[in-house]
Amino acid sequence: MSIKIALLGYGNLSRGVEAAIKQNADTELVAVFTRRDPSSVSLKTEGVPVLNVSEIESMKDDIDVLVLGGGSATDLPEQTPKYAKLFNVVDSFDTHARIPEHFSNVDKAAKEGGNVGIISVGWDPGMFSLLRMISNAVLPEGNDYTFWGKGVSQGHSDAIRRIEGVKDARQYTVPIEAAVEKVRSGENPQLTTREKHLRECYVVAEENADKAYIEEQIKTMPNYFADYDTTVTFISEEELKEKHSGLPHGGFVLRSGVTGNNKENKHIIEYNLKLDSNPEFTGSVIVAYARAAYKLSKEGVSGCKTVFDIAPTYLSSQSPEELRAHML
Amino acid sequence: MSIKIALLGYGNLSRGVEAAIKQNADTELVAVFTRRDPSSVSLKTEGVPVLNVSEIESMKDDIDVLVLGGGSATDLPEQTPKYAKLFNVVDSFDTHARIPEHFSNVDKAAKEGGNVGIISVGWDPGMFSLLRMISNAVLPEGNDYTFWGKGVSQGHSDAIRRIEGVKDARQYTVPIEAAVEKVRSGENPQLTTREKHLRECYVVAEENADKAYIEEQIKTMPNYFADYDTTVTFISEEELKEKHSGLPHGGFVLRSGVTGNNKENKHIIEYNLKLDSNPEFTGSVIVAYARAAYKLSKEGVSGCKTVFDIAPTYLSSQSPEELRAHML
Repeated sequence: MSIKIALLGYGNLSRGVEAAIKQNADTELVAVFTRRDPSSVSLKTEGVPVLNVSEIESMKDDIDVLVLGGGSATDLPEQTPKYAKLFNVVDSFDTHARIPEHFSNVDKAAKEGGNVGIISVGWDPGMFSLLRMISNAVLPEGNDYTFWGKGVSQGHSDAIRRIEGVKDARQYTVPIEAAVEKVRSGENPQLTTREKHLRECYVVAEENADKAYIEEQIKTMPNYFADYDTTVTFISEEELKEKHSGLPHGGFVLRSGVTGNNKENKHIIEYNLKLDSNPEFTGSVIVAYARAAYKLSKEGVSGCKTVFDIAPTYLSSQSPEELRAHML
Repeated sequence: MSIKIALLGYGNLSRGVEAAIKQNADTELVAVFTRRDPSSVSLKTEGVPVLNVSEIESMKDDIDVLVLGGGSATDLPEQTPKYAKLFNVVDSFDTHARIPEHFSNVDKAAKEGGNVGIISVGWDPGMFSLLRMISNAVLPEGNDYTFWGKGVSQGHSDAIRRIEGVKDARQYTVPIEAAVEKVRSGENPQLTTREKHLRECYVVAEENADKAYIEEQIKTMPNYFADYDTTVTFISEEELKEKHSGLPHGGFVLRSGVTGNNKENKHIIEYNLKLDSNPEFTGSVIVAYARAAYKLSKEGVSGCKTVFDIAPTYLSSQSPEELRAHML
């Protein structure tokens, strides 16, 4: 009896979930739904149907958890509440400012449907949030630091691609070692945006494009690059493909706090991720929370949950007895 | 309305809990119970009574959570079940092999009393267990590594003090950097005990003691030192007091795993603690779990719990709404 998981959408993230399902013996991929022509979608798992999203309701009794692979800008605000009425769902909604509103919409829908909806699952939001929250509870007097990278930012890569004369681009977010070391040493520095991260851009220009113009457009782009030290390197299409086709990422969350009757003792908690594949790691986290959604639903729980609301034992395929004997 | 916490015992750990309570506005120390003469115990918190343990039952209605500061060898196996009948309790039971039995005893007693008993709270077991468990659920194919230190091992320091001719001693457990780097690089090494940690001993000898004999006794001591590379440095009592009176500790838990259809992508999760004061950090973790015991009990929950069973939100003094808005 495995947990029957379906996917809505088949982008990078969904493919990461698909790969993770294969590594978890208690989970099974039962369907992929798409808004495209199903015949144009080819899965990496044999024997699993690709169906048009219009057929999703007819599969209601065959799916334990629906994973929503869409984007936070337009897909998830609409899809997660919609499908939480019909299924237990998990999404990776990552627009931090809109989480309270999204939670409220999903909570209402999930309660109506008697389902569990877990939102904002992944590593940030997700694992990083969990570590920030727990570390704050343990060390209430202190400072939080989050660094991202070295890793590919797809949003920043896309922003470069929209510049005239750019054929393709890849942007790496790079934490600045000097800042990281200050935090790790317990100095509690105040750090500006520019002091925390660099932005490294690898750009393939179209033939005869004005490279000086492209570089200027990147470096002065508000929100994305203007507040950072940014390097721009023009490379060939072949080099981009060869050296920059992966989606590595990672980063670290630090909590620097004090204890003692005179606050004389310092403590540093660091959670550090080095990920060869951002979507595959995110997909792996999602599968663990899909398991939690399934177990909670079996216990009669309904409504919207986040990583804060779920006891860790629900994430594991092992029994509480096994976990106590081997992991505690 | 703060959470009323009492302590049983007043050793290093209890003093760490006492200091942490002062940093958490929603908690309050209401009593310390001791098996000694109460007049011999002087607290760091004004206005809190020190009482003989025989009076503990009479305080039943004035205490929300009793924290057990005793040792795992003889105190906690008896005390935690005994007091779980009367109070919500938290302990730091750390004899890994006996956790299943301890859980079972505390569970029975806590259910009888309608109380919550949280066992094995601290950083190992505790935070390290939590990270091991979650990281295994997220990356089911991989290897676990735990390194401790650099930090003072009180058990090993005590073992040295029992050798003839030793006046005082301090033992540091030191992770071996070369081994750590292999793990961080994703090599998945097989590591022997000797390859993972060094043991550094600072020893104050009695006048005219046979130092060669002491050094030999330390280095060949089974279980404690024989399987490690151990250094022994004789120092004066003054130097021990000046340079080695703190109780720093720390360490890191690593999970090295793979994902992908061909398991081609590596991921490293690292949780790293650098602690100036082992008992104060442990005490800080305990206060967060005392808050959880209180909240769970208010919801009508009873029985024994571990860090695996408790949703992170229970650890925080912030509301779920605040946590979602600011920490997710």
